Order: sequence, then structure tokens, then C-alpha cells
Amino acid sequence: MAEKVLIIGAVALGPKVACRLRRINPDVDITVIDRDSLISYGGCGIPYYVGGDVAELEGLYSTIAHAKRDVAFFKHVKGFNVLTRVEALEIKRAEKRVVVRYLDDEKDGELEYDKLVIATGATPMRPPFAGSDLPKVHVVSNLHHASSIKKAISNGEVERAVVIGAGAIGIEMAEALTDLWGVETTIVEMADQVLPQALGKDMARIVEKKLADRGVNLLLSQRVMRINGDMENGAQSVEIVDQFGKNPPTTLECDMVILAAGVRPNSELASAAGLAVGRNRGILVNKMMQTTDPNIYAGGDCAEFTNLVSGLDCVMPLGSLANRQGRIIATNINGGNEQFTGSVGSFCIKVFDMGVAKAGLTVNQAKAAGFDPLYSVVAQSDRAHFFPDADFMFMKLIADRKTRRVLGVEAAGPQGDAVKARVDAVAPLLKFGVDVSEICNLEVSYSPPYASAMDIVNNAGNTLDNTLNGSLKAVDTFEFLELFKQGNIKVLDVRSHIQSAPFVEKYPNEWINIPQEEISQRVDEISELIKNKVPTGYPLYLICGTGPRSYEIQVFLNSKGITNTSNVQGGYGMILAIHEPLV
Amino acid sequence: MAEKVLIIGAVALGPKVACRLRRINPDVDITVIDRDSLISYGGCGIPYYVGGDVAELEGLYSTIAHAKRDVAFFKHVKGFNVLTRVEALEIKRAEKRVVVRYLDDEKDGELEYDKLVIATGATPMRPPFAGSDLPKVHVVSNLHHASSIKKAISNGEVERAVVIGAGAIGIEMAEALTDLWGVETTIVEMADQVLPQALGKDMARIVEKKLADRGVNLLLSQRVMRINGDMENGAQSVEIVDQFGKNPPTTLECDMVILAAGVRPNSELASAAGLAVGRNRGILVNKMMQTTDPNIYAGGDCAEFTNLVSGLDCVMPLGSLANRQGRIIATNINGGNEQFTGSVGSFCIKVFDMGVAKAGLTVNQAKAAGFDPLYSVVAQSDRAHFFPDADFMFMKLIADRKTRRVLGVEAAGPQGDAVKARVDAVAPLLKFGVDVSEICNLEVSYSPPYASAMDIVNNAGNTLDNTLNGSLKAVDTFEFLELFKQGNIKVLDVRSHIQSAPFVEKYPNEWINIPQEEISQRVDEISELIKNKVPTGYPLYLICGTGPRSYEIQVFLNSKGITNTSNVQGGYGMILAIHEPLV
Repeated sequence: MAEKVLIIGAVALGPKVACRLRRINPDVDITVIDRDSLISYGGCGIPYYVGGDVAELEGLYSTIAHAKRDVAFFKHVKGFNVLTRVEALEIKRAEKRVVVRYLDDEKDGELEYDKLVIATGATPMRPPFAGSDLPKVHVVSNLHHASSIKKAISNGEVERAVVIGAGAIGIEMAEALTDLWGVETTIVEMADQVLPQALGKDMARIVEKKLADRGVNLLLSQRVMRINGDMENGAQSVEIVDQFGKNPPTTLECDMVILAAGVRPNSELASAAGLAVGRNRGILVNKMMQTTDPNIYAGGDCAEFTNLVSGLDCVMPLGSLANRQGRIIATNINGGNEQFTGSVGSFCIKVFDMGVAKAGLTVNQAKAAGFDPLYSVVAQSDRAHFFPDADFMFMKLIADRKTRRVLGVEAAGPQGDAVKARVDAVAPLLKFGVDVSEICNLEVSYSPPYASAMDIVNNAGNTLDNTLNGSLKAVDTFEFLELFKQGNIKVLDVRSHIQSAPFVEKYPNEWINIPQEEISQRVDEISELIKNKVPTGYPLYLICGTGPRSYEIQVFLNSKGITNTSNVQGGYGMILAIHEPLV
Repeated sequence: MAEKVLIIGAVALGPKVACRLRRINPDVDITVIDRDSLISYGGCGIPYYVGGDVAELEGLYSTIAHAKRDVAFFKHVKGFNVLTRVEALEIKRAEKRVVVRYLDDEKDGELEYDKLVIATGATPMRPPFAGSDLPKVHVVSNLHHASSIKKAISNGEVERAVVIGAGAIGIEMAEALTDLWGVETTIVEMADQVLPQALGKDMARIVEKKLADRGVNLLLSQRVMRINGDMENGAQSVEIVDQFGKNPPTTLECDMVILAAGVRPNSELASAAGLAVGRNRGILVNKMMQTTDPNIYAGGDCAEFTNLVSGLDCVMPLGSLANRQGRIIATNINGGNEQFTGSVGSFCIKVFDMGVAKAGLTVNQAKAAGFDPLYSVVAQSDRAHFFPDADFMFMKLIADRKTRRVLGVEAAGPQGDAVKARVDAVAPLLKFGVDVSEICNLEVSYSPPYASAMDIVNNAGNTLDNTLNGSLKAVDTFEFLELFKQGNIKVLDVRSHIQSAPFVEKYPNEWINIPQEEISQRVDEISELIKNKVPTGYPLYLICGTGPRSYEIQVFLNSKGITNTSNVQGGYGMILAIHEPLV
């Protein structure tokens, strides 16, 4: 008798396991169940459906050849059964059976398995404030949600929306609401930055600036107290209070609330069956993607696996991981030995006309994992600077101070594919624990329309190398701006007279200009400046357009015995990216 | 007394070594010499200057802050001396002196060194046919060439041009001539494909089709016999003959000839001084970038180093390599220990509105290096297929049959940065000798605007994995087209009736349609077909839009005992990319 494989969940991982398994084993008996009627969709495409990039909901569950991925498709084209509107209630491991409920007729039954795959995904979190279950409060996790959100907006029912949470989905939804529909949108986020799981504060600020530029109202460090409204009229407003509780609560009037406060792995079923669940509430799996019961596999958003940089367990709700893991599970069910060793946390997002990507750990995550992170921030054109459509890209590279191991990379810029190219080139190396010099010499492909001869990725490596070996002493842009606002510090601008003149004029006490080419003749003057004008306990801050010239000056001054300087990382370019112009 | 560092060559590597060395060592005495007056330019930008993307020649030798990189700039801003119009004649290693000629006053002299850096670059090859030294015959290697080519064109002197050589520079120049200036341009290439060093024949054909579509006349497998003309009028025509000598020579009338037949490392100076030169005539260097004389370093286009995939010595005339090597040389001259271990041959090029990239070895290069290469060809959208600007990308992945080691990757598509992203993500792994499964699971970042959940790079890995393990039996598109032209073979098209109808109608003897969803019901029919209609010695060719559905059918039929099938790699999408439409 053919082996029975039962798969719980038919969105991303489930169908992938089934399709692959059918291809490599024509005889195995495959059944996929899902409590929903709409299955096998690209959930990550929902914001683009709402925002109009994808015109029809069907686009999200159709193949490239325009076949709808429904029960009939999987039956006739892919050769396995999908039972929709069937919910798994309990796994009886001893009997190798799953108790299920047929939702349409509310009957229960049991399904047998030899091998079971848990692909139950994740559920949007409903934070414990009042009103999160009111009408007009939407989560974004399946096509029904997508459809009702878009219907409400396209019916003209939504003039103002509040998005709770500034993770990827919150940002993508805010873009969708604003860009196509002109909905007045406010994002409320508890953390003091957007994308706290993905980006450091500096790179996040670039995203925040983009959101502001495009009319999204962003409220950081704010906690939602309640959503006001009633069952008849639905949500009417959101009450928030700043995290520090200093100001009285604010009320945001709205016609729609999007709850995008993260997701929680659906691990209850596994947990109730005695399978091990990890610190992030995901189902723990080994490298074969088996749970603590070797006959039961898990993968996708409900599973927990190793972060290959931190060594800690993590969850990563991403369709791409689900697909790759699905293939591995199918191979292994069929007797293969494919391994999923873990994730380096590669991530990308489009924010209006800007692309953002990261891999590995942020500085905070690196600290939490016991590293001592140092980083470089580089601003550079994303193609040869003489090429017409060259534009600024920002890149941050993070390494451990002592071991020089590369820990993470973040980038942002207007040409999203080019941003992705840089991050994806560093990502494969992260699990090997490579030294920063690997990034200095990373052999990215070069041609003027696509890269610089000394590409930003190499320069991020070089800058970090300079920082690690002590030749570059840099100040974080935030720290610099903070000090600058307080006044009293001295800034030496080594750009041209023309470029620096407005700064010198506006900040006569702080801003001094000596163009790079005059520095070597004016060393004594700088020496005097530091001795007499720079406040005790502070360095002389060196700044240029993006950082390399001021670095060069720093090294030069150092050789002249002037060591009390600090280089503004990423130069004025980075300031402009995260702050309003200083002049 | 300060150590003296002498650098021969002031284009890419030379200035890089000098700048970096000055930064890390303020005391060392640095002199750079160059026989030219124009220095430190982006030579790879010349086609974009000719083609108008870069408006002014100065753009190619200016910094991003618009400073001209000339002698004064290096003196005052970078802190070292550049002597232009000074040619190195001889290296007296025993005395640590270089004999030089001051070209302007034709006097000779000697310069001392403690450490010498040879950065003499490469020279365009002048093949041994008559007329290559006539006026109007141009090479493309320095700014004087760039200027005279652009001047002639913009003066309206050029209606027809012949480009000799279909390497990167030949193609870029052909684009420049055609796209902006409307010059009727013919490329003559000895090999039977463009970019023979970079691409396999299939991916090259995609480039060839693009060139043809944009009006570039491409003549492959043609040898130049002579360039006709005289010293007064310059080149008037190019006489060519097909490589097989079957047809009489042809004459191509023209007003300009661009010689782009490759470059030769300038290693004579090194060679005359007794330094070892490699099989490609490049100066041999160790991982510290030292020549066989430890006091003499070499790098850039004149140096020869290890290809990290083949293990063979190679030359790679690329500004990006020169820059990375330059940094290493400077560090090592200063007592550091940075290593350049070699190159995986990363390369990219823009061809009109298409991007092409590669890393590692082509199939032919892999064979030459002793591997037994197998490959996959995948056609897939470069972002989520439901995303509006998704477009087709083509990717080829090559591995060794026995060891499964990944050997090379090639890709092409309309969104060049996205093409680069895929190739640059695979490239860093090549030197580690990874198994194909690393590409199946490569953690490229995912978001619908930038990638598919199962991205093309993963699918290229999966397809190759299927090929290696024998579940996918594929036919090369060229081989298929050749057989199809001969007639007699049978093609089973598993696309929809609507899609396949025109093919069935036009090729009633060859083309059969059974849509994928009907296959399982019509197994007997297929069995009969193979028994009675498919010619002996041939398989039944399975085709769909891009390959995955026909692969699925192949696996299914296999499970039904029907094993005599072959899958057309990349499907009809790949045929369209390299061939005129079949219907």
C-alpha cells in the first residue's frame, strides 16, 4: 500500500511539498488540508493587490501560465488532493492520525498519515488592547482580508486609515493606501524606528524619511491604548500614548485600522501533540526539517530554525523560505537527505520608489547575540558616478570587533534591484563566518552602467576594515546631529568653498571650511583650532560629501600628530538621507 | 630616509596604490609615472562617452565631487607626484632603478625605487592583417582614442563603421555607434558567437538577437583579411572571409574601423627584466601581488593570476579588479599581509536595454579545465510573476557531473541590475567549490517587486539538481532547433490548446498538443505515439512555455514507464530568445 502523506496547510509550503513529492514519487498518497477555501496564494502580494499593482485577486493565486491554483488544478494538473475548509484539531501521534473538522458541515473525522507535514503558517498578532476585534479593523494575512480591505477603499469608505505596526507589512500597506488611493495614512509603531527587526536606526531613518516625503504620517515610540468604535459603525479612532507616558494620549480619527503588529507561528497543534516549540513559539525542526517526531515535518512560517549568524533560533515568515524548505521536506519524505541548515535573515522591501535590503544581524541583534559589533556606513553612487542614471545608495556593513567576522549588511537606494544585488552578494558569505577582507575583495561584476570600479560593497568593506584597524575614527550620524544641535562642537568641512559657504554662514560658531587641497598647507591652523576652539572632551568633527575625503584628511592629520578628530560617517550625504537639510 | 615607491602606470591600479599607500603611510616617497598626459580615467567608460551617456570627456577622469584627476590633483589633494609623458624603458633590478624616457624632451634618465609597482595595463591587439595601422582605424583604450572617435562621428564623417571583435568593447562600441549616432554598424567576429570568453553559445545567442533587433549587423565566424584604404583617405573598407573558406571574400565599405580584437598584457618591460610571465602573457604574481622579484609588485590588466574555479592562470582586464588589487598592493608595500587569491571571472555588460552577467566558467571553459560540465537553462520572470513590470530573465547554471560542484553561472534579461543581482549572489560561492544544493537553497532576499518566492536562481539550482540526479532529461535548445528543422521528430506541447494551436496547424507532422491537465488521462495515447510515430533513435520532445510543466510531464510519464522523452530546456521562451518565432 502506498505511503500516506498528510499536509496541514495549503498556502506556500504545503503545496510546494505536495507538488515536489508528486514529481519525485508518483505512487505516494498525498492529501493536503486547509481550513480556508482560497489556497496557494502569494500572501506577500496582498499589499500590491490593495495598492493596484496587481489588478485582480486571482493574480495572487494563478500560475504564470494563468491557471488558477485551486483544488481542481492540484487534482488534475499536479496529481494530489486538497481538502479545503478542513481544520486540523489534534494530532494523535501514537495512532498516526489527525483529527479534523469539516467546517462546512461541522462534522469531525480522522485522517491517517505515515508522514505528516505541518504547514500551518502564522497568524497576525492581535495585541491586547480593546477594540482590535471591531469591524473595520483588518489584519493582512489571507485573500479574504485582502479583498475586504480593497473593497472598502475602492468603495470610497476610507479617507483616513491607521496602520498599527511599522514592519514590512505595515509599511507596504501604508504605501498601498497612500500611493494609489490617497488615503490619509498614519503608522503607529511602538519602537523608536521602523523595521526594528530588519534595520539599524540609521538605515531605518532613511525609510522613515521616505515615508514622510510621500505623505505617510509616522508616529514612533507610540503605544496603542485602544481602538474606539462599536460593532455597528466599526472602528472610529485609535487612541495612542507615547511610550514614555509624558504626554496625554492622542486620538487618531480613522475609517479603517490595519493591524500589522507582527505574526505568531501557528504552533498550538504541534505543541498540543507534544512536539517541541522554540523560544519564538515556532515548531523546532532539525536540519532535515523534522520536528521532534521524525515522522512529522514542519516548515514555513510556523517553524523555528537556526539563524546562521547568531546561532540562535529564529522564525522568518517569508514565502521564499517556505518554498525552499518545502522542496527539502519533499525530498526527505521520499528518503532523501537534503538539509536546511538555517537562515541568514535575507530580507528586502520596496518603500515607494526606494529599495531596502538586509542580511545577517543588525547592530542590536549582534549585541544581543554576544558579539561586539562595529560598523561602516557608506554613501556612494550605485553605478559609475559618470553614468547618467547613477544615484546614491547607502550601505551599512557590520562586523565583530575582535574576530572581524562579518555579521550583517543593510542597504537602501532608489534602484531597488541594485540594492538587492549588493546585499545578496554579501549574504551567501555570512554563514561561512568570513573576515571583513572578503568583502573588501568581493568580486562583484563590474560595468559602468551597473557598478563602480570600486563598488559600494567593496568600499563598505574597506571602510569597515579601516575602522577595525583604527585608522578611521568615525562618529555615528545620529550622535553627530545630536551634538551639533547642542552646539559648541566644531566641524571642519573639507569640501569646496562654494559647497560649504552656506554652512559657514549659517553656523559661524560651529562650521569651519578648509578645502581638502588646502589642508596640507594649513596644518598649523588646524592644530591651533583644536587647541583653542574645540571644546575639551570633544574631537574636531571632519565632514565631506560622503566620507572618503574627510577620512583621507583624518589620516593625514593623524600623521601630523593631530589625532583628536572624528569622521562623520557617510558625510553630508548621510545627513541629508536621514535628516532635514542643515542649510 | 623615506622608502621610495615607484609606480609605472597612472590609469587605474597605479593611482589606487598611490592613494591608499599615502593614506596609510604619510612618509613614504611615492612617484607615479605614465607615458600619457591624460591619466586616471575610467577606460571602461569610453563607449558611454562615445555613445553620449557621458557628455564630456572630463567626466571620465573626474571625481564624484567634480575634481579633475590630474597631476595637480594628485599632488595637492592626494599628496604624491605623478610624472606624465614619462615612459619606462628598462627595469634594472640589481640596482633598483628604472630607466625612463622623458617623452617631451626625448631625454632619458633613471628613477630609483625600494619598491616598484608595475601597472602598465594592456594594449589592444592589432591582428596581423594589412591596413590595421591606417587612419580611421581606431582602437579603444585611452582618452585620445575616445576623443578622436567621437570627434569623427559628431563631425558627420561616419556613416558606416566596422567593428572587429565581438567582445565586451566591440559590443559596447557597436551600441554607442548605433544607438546615439545611427551609424550603420557591422561587427565582424572570428568565433561563431559573441562574447566567447564570457558566455556559452545559448546565452550569447540572446545577445546576438538583441544586437540584430537594434540594427547592428553581426557577422560571426568571419576572419578579416585586410583593411583597404590609404594613408591619405584612411580605411575605406574591410575585406572578410568566412572561417570555412567556402565563400569568396566579402568587402564591407566603411568610414571607420574599430579594432576591438582583445587586449594583450603589457608585460614586455617585466619580461625583459627577467620577471616570470604566464601563459596569457601576463606578469605572474603571488597572492601578495608580488612578481617573482619580491620588491616588485604587479596588478591590473598586465598581471596574471589564478582563476579560482579552473585553477588555471588567467588575465582579467577589468577596472574593478585593478582597484581591489591596488588596495592590496598598497597594504602589502606598507608591511601588511593582504591576499588576492584570484578571480572567479565575474563580468557584466549592458547590451542596449538588456543586462548580461556571468561568473565562473562557461561549459567550454569547464571542459578545457578538465571538468565534465552539465547545465540547466531556466527562463523565469525576474520578480513575482504577478508584479506589473516582471519580465523574463534567462539563467544558465553549470556544474560538474560527478562532483556536483558549481562551476559557472550566466544570466541575461531586460532589467540589468536584477540580472547582476542573481549572478553576484552565486559568484561568492564559486571559490568554495560548493555543491549545487547550495544554489537550490541560496538565500536571496525576497519581496514581490524584486524576486519570486522560488527565485530564478533557486530554480536554476533545482533544475540542475534534477538533471544531475537523472530525473530531468533535457535537450539543448540549439540541438532541438537543429533537429526540428530537419523535420521528422515529434514534439509534444503541453501548453493549452489555444497556445499550441498555431504550432499544430503549421507543423502538423511534428507538433502534437496535449494540455498538461489532460496528460494523466491520455497516457496510452502517448505510449502509442512513441511506439508508432516517434522515429527510431529519437525521444519524444516535451515542450511548454518555459520548461517546468514539460518537466513535470516528463517525470509523470517516466513513472508510467514512458521513459523515451526529452525536455526542451527553457521551453518556447528560450526558443524565442535565441531564434525567430516558430509560428
